[in-house]
Amino acid sequence: MRKTMKIPRATVTRLSLYYRQLELMEFDGYRTVSSEKLAWLCQVNPAQVRKDLGYFGEFGVRGVGYDVRELQNQIKKILAINREWNLGVVGIGKLGSALLQHRNLLARGFRCVAAFDNDPEKIGQLGPSGIRIRDIEELSRAVKELNIEIGVITTPASAAQYVADVFIEADVNAILNFSPARIQVPDCCMVENIDFTVRLDILAYKLHHEINS
Amino acid sequence: MRKTMKIPRATVTRLSLYYRQLELMEFDGYRTVSSEKLAWLCQVNPAQVRKDLGYFGEFGVRGVGYDVRELQNQIKKILAINREWNLGVVGIGKLGSALLQHRNLLARGFRCVAAFDNDPEKIGQLGPSGIRIRDIEELSRAVKELNIEIGVITTPASAAQYVADVFIEADVNAILNFSPARIQVPDCCMVENIDFTVRLDILAYKLHHEINS
Repeated sequence: MRKTMKIPRATVTRLSLYYRQLELMEFDGYRTVSSEKLAWLCQVNPAQVRKDLGYFGEFGVRGVGYDVRELQNQIKKILAINREWNLGVVGIGKLGSALLQHRNLLARGFRCVAAFDNDPEKIGQLGPSGIRIRDIEELSRAVKELNIEIGVITTPASAAQYVADVFIEADVNAILNFSPARIQVPDCCMVENIDFTVRLDILAYKLHHEINS
Repeated sequence: MRKTMKIPRATVTRLSLYYRQLELMEFDGYRTVSSEKLAWLCQVNPAQVRKDLGYFGEFGVRGVGYDVRELQNQIKKILAINREWNLGVVGIGKLGSALLQHRNLLARGFRCVAAFDNDPEKIGQLGPSGIRIRDIEELSRAVKELNIEIGVITTPASAAQYVADVFIEADVNAILNFSPARIQVPDCCMVENIDFTVRLDILAYKLHHEINS
């Protein structure tokens, strides 16, 4: 990659989607794929696929397409998911527990190395993945000891900002926020918000306006 | 709202965020809020807030701002979340179970009325919310009997397209897809994809390129 070039976020997102489709294709026994087919599977247009990959080099062979496994490996390198990343999960309710046990996370190199809660009934217990649930007060120390690189917030909205502040104070600059609260962070910190109730709202809005239009 | 006007998806998404912040503000005892404060809380600019709301009418009072509760009610109506929507969840693993029990869903009017799986060990059992897990083969009938309006897919990637096809065949035209597979649907069907491993990939990419830049 040309070091000075800023890659659009949408490109990074699509690379992640291409990677998933390539995995499925490899599982189904495919060895090569055309940009047309990959585009169709990912619901983008073929020129977009070629442009996205073009930021990082020449991967395909004209008339043959992309080697499924080779392109996977290249995208893994580009996305930096050819290594493990350590996650700390705060808020071990239903969703936090599901994440701790989520097969896809570890399969993609995202390892939940620590779990935190503020509920005295939960602290010290073994979480669903066999990991001990720590007091949220231990977060800062655990970040250093376990090299937590990405913080995951699955607390109620009211606790999200406090947890984010503790992560940032402990130098964790990447946060995946499942709480419905928008958290305020300094520029050095990256946040990805995942609020699926927002997506349900969008579906409800569209359904309603379709029915009534 | 002017019936002929097409509202941008981004506006609908932000309305959903405004609604969440208004809820939190009401919980904290606020009665009014300025567009500046609401904008700051939602990390958008104040002109955007005014423009988004402007599609639907005049809600604020100059110099006073918006009435927190009144604006909530208005947005509820706009988003059509002032009524209940029936959800059917397919794939009762960890994530599906967490969704069945998710307090926020029901609080926002999204009611999980049916749960489905294809695992004979699970079928007939009571799911975590006390709902009986049905055979996926019953989906089509259940859609009609229970008036399922939104389908939620929490299966592995390999099963997602099949489940989507069954939903569409049964006239469920709104799907929330948590599986990593992109599903192909006809134009009449709306899909919202929520793959949080994509978001982790984005964080990994940014962290890596920040460290190495």
